[in-house]
Amino acid sequence: MDFELPERARAVEARVRAFYETKILPRHDEWVRAQRRGEAFAPLTTIRAEARAQGLWNLALPDLAPDEPGTRLSNLEYAPVAEIIGRLGWAPLAFNCQPPDVPNMIMLQHMANAEQKERWLKPLLEGRTRSCFGMTEPAVASSDATNIATRIERQGDDYVVTGRKWFITGAAHPDCSFCILLGVSDASADRTRRHTAVIVPMNAPGVRVVRSQRYFGLEDQIAPIGEIVFERVRVPIENRLGAEGEGFRGGQTRLGPARLHHCMRAIGMAELMVELMMARAAERKAFGRSVVEYDTVQRWIAEARIEIERTRLLILRTAWLLDRSGHEAAWRDVSLIKVAAPAMLQTIADRAAQIFGAMGGSDDVPIHRAFVHARMLRIGDGPDEVHVRQIFRQEPRPAWSIATSPYVIGAE
Amino acid sequence: MDFELPERARAVEARVRAFYETKILPRHDEWVRAQRRGEAFAPLTTIRAEARAQGLWNLALPDLAPDEPGTRLSNLEYAPVAEIIGRLGWAPLAFNCQPPDVPNMIMLQHMANAEQKERWLKPLLEGRTRSCFGMTEPAVASSDATNIATRIERQGDDYVVTGRKWFITGAAHPDCSFCILLGVSDASADRTRRHTAVIVPMNAPGVRVVRSQRYFGLEDQIAPIGEIVFERVRVPIENRLGAEGEGFRGGQTRLGPARLHHCMRAIGMAELMVELMMARAAERKAFGRSVVEYDTVQRWIAEARIEIERTRLLILRTAWLLDRSGHEAAWRDVSLIKVAAPAMLQTIADRAAQIFGAMGGSDDVPIHRAFVHARMLRIGDGPDEVHVRQIFRQEPRPAWSIATSPYVIGAE
Amino acid sequence: MDFELPERARAVEARVRAFYETKILPRHDEWVRAQRRGEAFAPLTTIRAEARAQGLWNLALPDLAPDEPGTRLSNLEYAPVAEIIGRLGWAPLAFNCQPPDVPNMIMLQHMANAEQKERWLKPLLEGRTRSCFGMTEPAVASSDATNIATRIERQGDDYVVTGRKWFITGAAHPDCSFCILLGVSDASADRTRRHTAVIVPMNAPGVRVVRSQRYFGLEDQIAPIGEIVFERVRVPIENRLGAEGEGFRGGQTRLGPARLHHCMRAIGMAELMVELMMARAAERKAFGRSVVEYDTVQRWIAEARIEIERTRLLILRTAWLLDRSGHEAAWRDVSLIKVAAPAMLQTIADRAAQIFGAMGGSDDVPIHRAFVHARMLRIGDGPDEVHVRQIFRQEPRPAWSIATSPYVIGAE
Amino acid sequence: MDFELPERARAVEARVRAFYETKILPRHDEWVRAQRRGEAFAPLTTIRAEARAQGLWNLALPDLAPDEPGTRLSNLEYAPVAEIIGRLGWAPLAFNCQPPDVPNMIMLQHMANAEQKERWLKPLLEGRTRSCFGMTEPAVASSDATNIATRIERQGDDYVVTGRKWFITGAAHPDCSFCILLGVSDASADRTRRHTAVIVPMNAPGVRVVRSQRYFGLEDQIAPIGEIVFERVRVPIENRLGAEGEGFRGGQTRLGPARLHHCMRAIGMAELMVELMMARAAERKAFGRSVVEYDTVQRWIAEARIEIERTRLLILRTAWLLDRSGHEAAWRDVSLIKVAAPAMLQTIADRAAQIFGAMGGSDDVPIHRAFVHARMLRIGDGPDEVHVRQIFRQEPRPAWSIATSPYVIGAE
Repeated sequence: MDFELPERARAVEARVRAFYETKILPRHDEWVRAQRRGEAFAPLTTIRAEARAQGLWNLALPDLAPDEPGTRLSNLEYAPVAEIIGRLGWAPLAFNCQPPDVPNMIMLQHMANAEQKERWLKPLLEGRTRSCFGMTEPAVASSDATNIATRIERQGDDYVVTGRKWFITGAAHPDCSFCILLGVSDASADRTRRHTAVIVPMNAPGVRVVRSQRYFGLEDQIAPIGEIVFERVRVPIENRLGAEGEGFRGGQTRLGPARLHHCMRAIGMAELMVELMMARAAERKAFGRSVVEYDTVQRWIAEARIEIERTRLLILRTAWLLDRSGHEAAWRDVSLIKVAAPAMLQTIADRAAQIFGAMGGSDDVPIHRAFVHARMLRIGDGPDEVHVRQIFRQEPRPAWSIATSPYVIGAE
Repeated sequence: MDFELPERARAVEARVRAFYETKILPRHDEWVRAQRRGEAFAPLTTIRAEARAQGLWNLALPDLAPDEPGTRLSNLEYAPVAEIIGRLGWAPLAFNCQPPDVPNMIMLQHMANAEQKERWLKPLLEGRTRSCFGMTEPAVASSDATNIATRIERQGDDYVVTGRKWFITGAAHPDCSFCILLGVSDASADRTRRHTAVIVPMNAPGVRVVRSQRYFGLEDQIAPIGEIVFERVRVPIENRLGAEGEGFRGGQTRLGPARLHHCMRAIGMAELMVELMMARAAERKAFGRSVVEYDTVQRWIAEARIEIERTRLLILRTAWLLDRSGHEAAWRDVSLIKVAAPAMLQTIADRAAQIFGAMGGSDDVPIHRAFVHARMLRIGDGPDEVHVRQIFRQEPRPAWSIATSPYVIGAE
Repeated sequence: MDFELPERARAVEARVRAFYETKILPRHDEWVRAQRRGEAFAPLTTIRAEARAQGLWNLALPDLAPDEPGTRLSNLEYAPVAEIIGRLGWAPLAFNCQPPDVPNMIMLQHMANAEQKERWLKPLLEGRTRSCFGMTEPAVASSDATNIATRIERQGDDYVVTGRKWFITGAAHPDCSFCILLGVSDASADRTRRHTAVIVPMNAPGVRVVRSQRYFGLEDQIAPIGEIVFERVRVPIENRLGAEGEGFRGGQTRLGPARLHHCMRAIGMAELMVELMMARAAERKAFGRSVVEYDTVQRWIAEARIEIERTRLLILRTAWLLDRSGHEAAWRDVSLIKVAAPAMLQTIADRAAQIFGAMGGSDDVPIHRAFVHARMLRIGDGPDEVHVRQIFRQEPRPAWSIATSPYVIGAE
Repeated sequence: MDFELPERARAVEARVRAFYETKILPRHDEWVRAQRRGEAFAPLTTIRAEARAQGLWNLALPDLAPDEPGTRLSNLEYAPVAEIIGRLGWAPLAFNCQPPDVPNMIMLQHMANAEQKERWLKPLLEGRTRSCFGMTEPAVASSDATNIATRIERQGDDYVVTGRKWFITGAAHPDCSFCILLGVSDASADRTRRHTAVIVPMNAPGVRVVRSQRYFGLEDQIAPIGEIVFERVRVPIENRLGAEGEGFRGGQTRLGPARLHHCMRAIGMAELMVELMMARAAERKAFGRSVVEYDTVQRWIAEARIEIERTRLLILRTAWLLDRSGHEAAWRDVSLIKVAAPAMLQTIADRAAQIFGAMGGSDDVPIHRAFVHARMLRIGDGPDEVHVRQIFRQEPRPAWSIATSPYVIGAE
């Protein structure tokens, strides 16, 4: 047992941190102002090129093939990197580590054949396009996949897709060129065998992004959320990922990493919240005392420290387990962090907001963003309630019953 | 002791409810769509005229003078009304009961002389203009009034106002015609005697609304928040409310009602959250059960009911006390509800969001609005921490010490 | 609506308070030391006689018949009295207001015939004996009455009772002379019609108090908890209360008041906790400050004040509703307070313990007792979970569904 | 970074587990019944001999000297052992790993000279006697050492000790033969230099154990708590540990391990709570469902799993850090776990109590014990508030202020 990050992880962390501090953070002001004006942030292209030139590219893909561009990091090695770049919404873009593209790349690595990889995966790996994943639907509880209603019907050499997806992260981004869509191809099949995954180009006839959406008032400018209508959209059968009926299982391959990375970034945001609280409290005065002398503030910061440290350890262990034993073995632990990390961050962000007064809820500081990241993560990729249920089911029952338990000593 | 609302209150509640259900709620869809298009909602004028014609006007002003338009309700009588119209952001407009105008009217009733009432209060009572209250400042903890930095300097027959105010509710509304501003006129005076209140027309030279602001992503379309710069703004001394140095005390007169009304509306929103949860849970299925059969959902709804019932009672008692014994007597109790009500609503709204899945955080449902009302109320009009401190200070010490306490029975 | 206690309530409150402060509290030290030595507290007899002579007797019985001794108070009038005497475990004894005798008296008032009243109720009303109520059983979840296993079989003119009851409050008291026992007389009947209530003298052959029990380490010296074995105990059919099959409904008549009184006493204990916190914090120093200057302490006290005030109001309203409209009408509200009051007290007592350091958990101060009162009340007379369920079931669904709700404004 | 326990740790864990399951747990019933009868548990001597013969002795002492009996385990290696033996109060006795003797042994290892080790440490290492540590005092907040009032005065070749200590764990045990006492030898010295540690034999004239004490109703039968009066007790100067004025620093050497071990045992108890909840919920039925099907129960168990996993990791990392870098380096992290572990256990135990109904608070199940372990740990060895403060103080401030922060992007 060893709690020190491996040397390679520390080395890449140091390089990413340096890049972040010198190339990204100093330009954050520019980025924000461009966004406020509704403009693209032109320097991003150069920054990305620079990151890639330094070998800081596609860092979140442990199974990067030899001919795929980027530096292969294990999940464990990626953890400290994700924390750093999780601090700013746009920082992951610099390293081509942004969601939902990374989980989509992982899904394509698992399910796509050679032609599909060439056509859909490669541009993503190169950072030349963007993508989305179409699962959630408006009319049903999508966390239970059996509720999915979008139909995928075979007609000759095509599939015809009909349905509506919403809260699709990235769908409203102008660069989003395709959607990996999950729909029902055989409603009579077993609950994990009835879905098929097909790639739907966003410019296919019948695809319509009806509107962009926000969650708790946050416009995600990196991967703006969209609602999509699919009206009898035809895609060739070559666009099917894996076999018919393998969509559900295929989707699972992207879920583990998606959840893990969200949790890692949540730690980064929580650290940022602590820094903000420390700075703010130290420079404010109220009722004759520095705010930092109020022990409520001290307590909130100390409790944040406790929550961050222990949640990070759980995330790191999950990453380590994933690297070592694969997705199935780490399934329960992914659920553990998926519940723990957003709860941690939501509380910390809420308290940061309180310490900051009115400013804390404004768009001037990243507290609202951190809060919404947490709040949305409690719903997205499976709500807390589903994960809680999964965790519970993995809990063994003791060999004894209450009546036979050696720990229960009754009256007579 | 009697827990039944007085007959007059029930009568006016019934009339407001009928108006709300027939004239307002059915047009909410229109209102929202107009807002989404960035347009004004034309039918509002007619709706207001109709409400006023029915005598449902200025319902939140217990001290309405005989010659002032509207129906005088006591604070207690207003409570059920406020709950109903608190459900929708724009409903209070119909009855001219919207903040921050109502607290401003109350402040003017207390502090303005006859000329000032004619010029500034009357148009508000008639619903012909809008107003804002300028207290909070960006650079300091404004809950401690001694931190206020905006200066009000006498120069001949004018005051010259210099400073910056932000998070000023209503300031960014196009109809906002004046600001009741609190600034420092004598920095050397006692902490409650150094501020003066002056009325600053929003079109005075040097007044500049720098930007509109949001809190946790919510654009308040009824009274949009603004940041205002005052650059050597000249106002005649006739615009001073009360004497020099009376600004702090004068501001207090509006704070009690402002807080009370916010809390009443919070109850209305909480009731709406419960309705939404009931409807949603009953019609969703997940993992083979109706969502309503999950006892977590049952618990959240039951706990919401408990919190609503007991917080409402506290609010009603505070209103009753205010009616009966005035502001000073009710001061502690206003703090009690000011802490209790937003905490209640924030939790309920958060749980409603969880039950609703992704939709719960969208702009399609009023959960985000309710959440932000609560979140902001924990900061606005004095943060929780200041009220907690006030409550604590009113708590009596027992006559005994631990050493002499009849409740402490030691060893020997 | 009127939040002032009626005059009669205030008058009786003042008299009970005076009695408590002059006759009871000053002798608490003696009482505790007697208990510690395992001795009876001889002066109690005189104190009770004195209270009765002052007309302060059987104050918790709103339906006291004209020929029954005591002063009839409504539930609302009893509330402030219960708060005062709830502060000390033994204080209710002075006024013959102690549980479980009071709920038993109420049940007897409802169910007993004239002979039964003479034989069993009268001695209780006179304070000449004690009683217990036998419902909870060790092997099953007794909150679901269908789980009850104790059998009551008719044999000639007798019933034969066989079973085991535990956590029977008062059963281990030497003065406990009879048990009102709930058992199954017809297992095939409807779930609310299968139980019968019989009175079992504690000295009947086959009744055996196996042991006394504690909850979270508290020995309830006023009504010590006991586990009772009933081995083929014969009681004459005259001991049956009401008809066969009416036991469940009969038991309900005592539950409302039992729960209400527990909650009222919980408020009294919470007030005592606040006094203890105020005294302790004010006289301690740590790290150069008076403990009272730490805002965590201030917050705990202020939050206690909020919780006490609003929970008390809910209890008072429930008492008022019970007086006005009876048990059925108040059923939901009894559940509301049954969940709210112990949660309130448990948190307050826990925080008091924290402020007191090691002493806070000792037997020298009444914090442990308050904590256990709360903790046990979350289980006793129906666990939180059962009440939550009841509350939920009373919650109406709105007329609209999500799809038709005027509050939900979707995309198109 | 590696999350697998080292092989040696796993080996010793397996051996302790086997011993626990075959030699200790099967006799727990006997132990409890002996305690209930107030008798000693005779077989303990044999069990201890057997454990020692197997080399399972003094496992909690990483700095065991070559000539001292026992198996030296690092703190990290001890962690899984502590979890197992923490499940039962008396299990640590079998391996001579019980508090407060272990921390006392560690303090003696650090401070005692050769003669003192021979006289006081050796019997402890051999398990031939018991000890206590006298710090906490009744009249003051002892967490602030400057409050300590017990005086140690030099008179010739003796020290004269005068004072009162309470809540001294182990002091009321008949085998406790000496107390390591902390008192003030020079009140004028610096706050960390004014205390001296002396060993006071419990049979010295003037030492009087006034009474035994309980915390939240728990009699600690392994190391019963006592209140001790020291009335002009004379001890020879040879009994002084270290130099005069070094008592405070000396006391610190025992605090790290004391806290760490308490936290490790808390994990063991939490695991036991989960087992109890799983067993109980699975075998109970209420309202037509198995209790385990209620998602509140599932949630409580899942949340317990999350809390246990991440708190355990934090404890393991702290043990690892202590082994690697020593006490000073691990100081903050000891505070982290000292706050986190009892909060975790208290919540879990409270929920276990709720699931168990009345039985959950009884002496038949170990829930009350686990609860009190947690509750007391929030006070003992420094209350939460002191640790929170320590943690806060270690938190670095960012290089930027709010005004200069790259994360804060204002209006203009």
